[in-house]
Amino acid sequence: MKTNLSSLDHFTNESARVDTAAIQPLPNSRKVYIQGTRPDIRVPMREVSQSDTATSQGTEKNPPIHIYDTSGPYTDPGADIDIRRGLAGMREPWIEARGDTEVLGGLTSDYSRERMNDTKLSAMRFNLKRPARCARTGMNVTQLHYARRGIITPEMEFIAIRENQQQALTEFAGNDLLTKQHPGQNFGATTQKLITPEFVRDEVARGRAIIPANINHPESEPMIIGRNFLVKINANIGNSALGSSIQDEVEKMTWAIRWGGDTVMDLSTGKNIHETREWIIRNSPVPIGTVPIYQALEKVDGRAEELTWEIFRDTLIEQAEQGVDYFTIHAGVRLAYVPMTAKRMTGIVSRGGSIMAKWCLAHHRESFLYTHFEEICEIMKAYDVSFSLGDGLRPGSIYDANDEAQFAELKTLGELTHVAWKHDVQVMIEGPGHVPMHMIKENMDLQLQYCDEAPFYTLGPLTTDIAPGYDHITSAIGAAMIGWYGTAMLCYVTPKEHLGLPDKDDVKEGIITYKIAAHVADLAKGHPGAQIRDNALSKARFEFRWNDQFNLGLDPDKAREFHDETLPQEGAKVAHFCSMCGPNFCSMKITQDVRDYAAQQGLSETEALEDGMARKANEFVEKGGEIYNKL
Amino acid sequence: MKTNLSSLDHFTNESARVDTAAIQPLPNSRKVYIQGTRPDIRVPMREVSQSDTATSQGTEKNPPIHIYDTSGPYTDPGADIDIRRGLAGMREPWIEARGDTEVLGGLTSDYSRERMNDTKLSAMRFNLKRPARCARTGMNVTQLHYARRGIITPEMEFIAIRENQQQALTEFAGNDLLTKQHPGQNFGATTQKLITPEFVRDEVARGRAIIPANINHPESEPMIIGRNFLVKINANIGNSALGSSIQDEVEKMTWAIRWGGDTVMDLSTGKNIHETREWIIRNSPVPIGTVPIYQALEKVDGRAEELTWEIFRDTLIEQAEQGVDYFTIHAGVRLAYVPMTAKRMTGIVSRGGSIMAKWCLAHHRESFLYTHFEEICEIMKAYDVSFSLGDGLRPGSIYDANDEAQFAELKTLGELTHVAWKHDVQVMIEGPGHVPMHMIKENMDLQLQYCDEAPFYTLGPLTTDIAPGYDHITSAIGAAMIGWYGTAMLCYVTPKEHLGLPDKDDVKEGIITYKIAAHVADLAKGHPGAQIRDNALSKARFEFRWNDQFNLGLDPDKAREFHDETLPQEGAKVAHFCSMCGPNFCSMKITQDVRDYAAQQGLSETEALEDGMARKANEFVEKGGEIYNKL
Repeated sequence: MKTNLSSLDHFTNESARVDTAAIQPLPNSRKVYIQGTRPDIRVPMREVSQSDTATSQGTEKNPPIHIYDTSGPYTDPGADIDIRRGLAGMREPWIEARGDTEVLGGLTSDYSRERMNDTKLSAMRFNLKRPARCARTGMNVTQLHYARRGIITPEMEFIAIRENQQQALTEFAGNDLLTKQHPGQNFGATTQKLITPEFVRDEVARGRAIIPANINHPESEPMIIGRNFLVKINANIGNSALGSSIQDEVEKMTWAIRWGGDTVMDLSTGKNIHETREWIIRNSPVPIGTVPIYQALEKVDGRAEELTWEIFRDTLIEQAEQGVDYFTIHAGVRLAYVPMTAKRMTGIVSRGGSIMAKWCLAHHRESFLYTHFEEICEIMKAYDVSFSLGDGLRPGSIYDANDEAQFAELKTLGELTHVAWKHDVQVMIEGPGHVPMHMIKENMDLQLQYCDEAPFYTLGPLTTDIAPGYDHITSAIGAAMIGWYGTAMLCYVTPKEHLGLPDKDDVKEGIITYKIAAHVADLAKGHPGAQIRDNALSKARFEFRWNDQFNLGLDPDKAREFHDETLPQEGAKVAHFCSMCGPNFCSMKITQDVRDYAAQQGLSETEALEDGMARKANEFVEKGGEIYNKL
Repeated sequence: MKTNLSSLDHFTNESARVDTAAIQPLPNSRKVYIQGTRPDIRVPMREVSQSDTATSQGTEKNPPIHIYDTSGPYTDPGADIDIRRGLAGMREPWIEARGDTEVLGGLTSDYSRERMNDTKLSAMRFNLKRPARCARTGMNVTQLHYARRGIITPEMEFIAIRENQQQALTEFAGNDLLTKQHPGQNFGATTQKLITPEFVRDEVARGRAIIPANINHPESEPMIIGRNFLVKINANIGNSALGSSIQDEVEKMTWAIRWGGDTVMDLSTGKNIHETREWIIRNSPVPIGTVPIYQALEKVDGRAEELTWEIFRDTLIEQAEQGVDYFTIHAGVRLAYVPMTAKRMTGIVSRGGSIMAKWCLAHHRESFLYTHFEEICEIMKAYDVSFSLGDGLRPGSIYDANDEAQFAELKTLGELTHVAWKHDVQVMIEGPGHVPMHMIKENMDLQLQYCDEAPFYTLGPLTTDIAPGYDHITSAIGAAMIGWYGTAMLCYVTPKEHLGLPDKDDVKEGIITYKIAAHVADLAKGHPGAQIRDNALSKARFEFRWNDQFNLGLDPDKAREFHDETLPQEGAKVAHFCSMCGPNFCSMKITQDVRDYAAQQGLSETEALEDGMARKANEFVEKGGEIYNKL
């Protein structure tokens, strides 16, 4: 069934332009690169500079703070961004040097060739000059394969540098105010003080972490997903039959990575899926994931029963040769599990899961994703596409949480993990969904058990169903908790969930909300260095360095805008109050008055408080204590 | 120090008007009243009606759903709202009938009389005709006092009806789809299937719950705060020296209760605090809390050191005679604890706490709140004002979480709880603040231990410091968790926290966010009936009853607006898709297709799935199982 509701995509490569909002450096920030053991390993970070603290002795410097940066070259004013050309293939020489791949004479997917030969598409096509690559016959080009053979790839070294909060270990050493951190509770994770390239290799070899890095996406900056690393977040973008254009979707991607998206999934189900994806991948410094069954379904005009293994297989190759870094494959939706969903409140709410359930029912056959799983592995390992084993039977309501169908599928995903590992294909596991708070931990515990610690990648979970319009929040609560328990990547939910296709504003709201969830999970796990940013921001807040407080936050623009609604004057940026409490009622100002008062008495603040005051205080404790001790 | 930044409040009682947005009934909702044992016990609820479900056999009715309603008469089209007259004093006859109070000849606070006699204030003054009341000599008029003497007050019966999800027990009995609920995990709470008036009395007598119900606020609808009841939320409003007017603040109150605020704190620190509060109380159907030290400080022009017990005492009487239902008193900020804050990142961040610390330091004396605590109790019990013992030393940054100062104060609050209980004065305890997720439970555990299960009332806690502009979210994560662990009331945080004075939009955003936190806590605790609304909404969602889905949500307006951004046509309200996935990719539609398909085969859906499919499925499990069992 074709819908008539969709408007034509008038996008052309001539009109393609980068979103100017996405290429401004963030306030008081500059891109710095930390070099590894070789000049071509240059790890980008965002350095936020701070103003000085005024003290009675003059001024005191506040060091710049380094922040993990997902925005790629976009926020580097030195970079020459042209989305019609795409990003530079930073990893290309690394891939070539391994000598296990070959350049293809042409695309090997039938569908890709069809699209390439369709002259009607010339105007909107991204003109990639670089030919696609594939593993040489008999070769396996996955990071897992290298890791298991003891090879530390440049990708792994890049990641080790990127994951470390280097400043915590070096220049901030001894600065307790910046580096003090509460010991975490990590539920059995193997938290490292220093992340070495060897540790990265070992975690990948163990299957406990993945590096989504298709050899046909050399533009990507290596990143890792695993519970012993920083918690990551994914942003879903993509058009639907009812709207959006290629330009819109590229802008959602650049907007998502500006605010902290670690990976982006292109879930397009509308027009020109192939071309949309090409534009996104060529311009993305973060790994791109997809759900290939969506495009396969479009190829059979939405008739699930007409899907075949051959169409699906061709779609995998098409997308692998474009450079997709991970595929969601709903191979755990087995025929036997579909009846388990019959008494559910909301049935099957995964799009891929419902498509496969429909196929299984129509044919009364086991899912071809399951029966052909080893062949899928063969394709994945020739390009290093990672599995994201889809939770097609995740609960879509609180009512359906943690039911038989959900956990039956999870167990199957565990079996499939071992199949993939046999092929040295990287795997992560998708998780729910809608789950009340007290039932979240069971999901994590069973996932670790069934899937042998393969990284967990969850959507939320949403902790209630009663807040359409606010499901970024209902789900952030669950996401923060499951991140703490051990989930490696959190798939964002936007405020539009259940209601409509997210736009750019929704993407940002979803990203910031999930950066919060991921960061509070890092803090709770005690990830080394995670608290530096909190400490630096709190110090700025206490010292009324308003601009530093804004700039160190996840969204400097909104913080400044909120503050300036009532106090727009530049002078208010050093004022010892804001409009919330006014000048007489700012507790931080009063606390500083107290400390200044102590200083004027000729004592250091601590002495004054601990010595003079404490003595007086003790008198009163004794005296005052009596008042109530009789009770 | 007076600030010149404030603009004059041009509000007059002649210009006062109700916010028209606050008096519309919510969509498809009507106010119903459930009568108790007497005709004057009429408990309001919001009844949301639903449309029918289309089935192959015709249509199936969906019952109306009752929702706990904090909006008072405002959403009742039958009520005649005139904010210049204020709300009716529903509780007046109950208070009179107890015969333990007397009508005062005039206000007994010096300051109140001064304001009453100030002719410059006539134009803005609320003209209350009803005289203030006070306990007769030797009498104690607290709900705790009655409870301990075995008296079930009308307030207690009202609350029992209000807290019960009556429908779950009666008309929905047997309707599993609506009433099924996951068993909760309640960490030792005494969860009741049916809340009786006697249970309410018993919990109040035990000190485990409070009913904030000043005899001078008869306009209030009784509500309860305790861990064995629904989790409540509070909204902070109030002007600051830098902005807002009486009209604005009354509108924030009516807006807050429309969206679900269970209590409102008037934290005004700017102009005309006395008159602002009067307008708020006279028009509020929910309990009003204040922090009297704020107004006391204004009376000494912001000079903390000039505060005296006499000024504070007069302020308590002033506010008690206006009808404030609970007072935040920072009596736990003892002189000896102030030095413990010297090495903190952010010092003392409670406004009241910092004011008292400054006073203690200036005088080198124990806090007068602590030394005069029993006299404070004497005042409270004469009007039934409840204590909200303030956490003046709560942490203001992740760095300062769970430190010595914080827990020293908490221990003192526990001592003071017993002092208050000795006087039969109701008490709840305020809690933090900024706390990483893994350190939240310690706060709850120590509070239960030190304060002998007196209700906990927490601000957030915020789980990270790095998101100014989004602290409603950083704190909702902590609030949901601590609510689950046992906190009885959650004080909202708005997006403007740390940045500026919240406006009406911020109030709504804070309220909805905290309704989410409170509700997910109820679900996790397994509060009986809590899941009905989730179930009803999910059923509507699955059946594409879009309007029902919006109307059952916490914010029908926003849900509808988001949906209509892309599909505004009325026909889309019954469409089997939205713009997120489009017609071919809606998983719920596909699931329904699957079920329809089964039905067409002449089998009931469950039979089809369980019987026919399962048989086929089993064949494949056996066959397919072999594929991977060898691994």
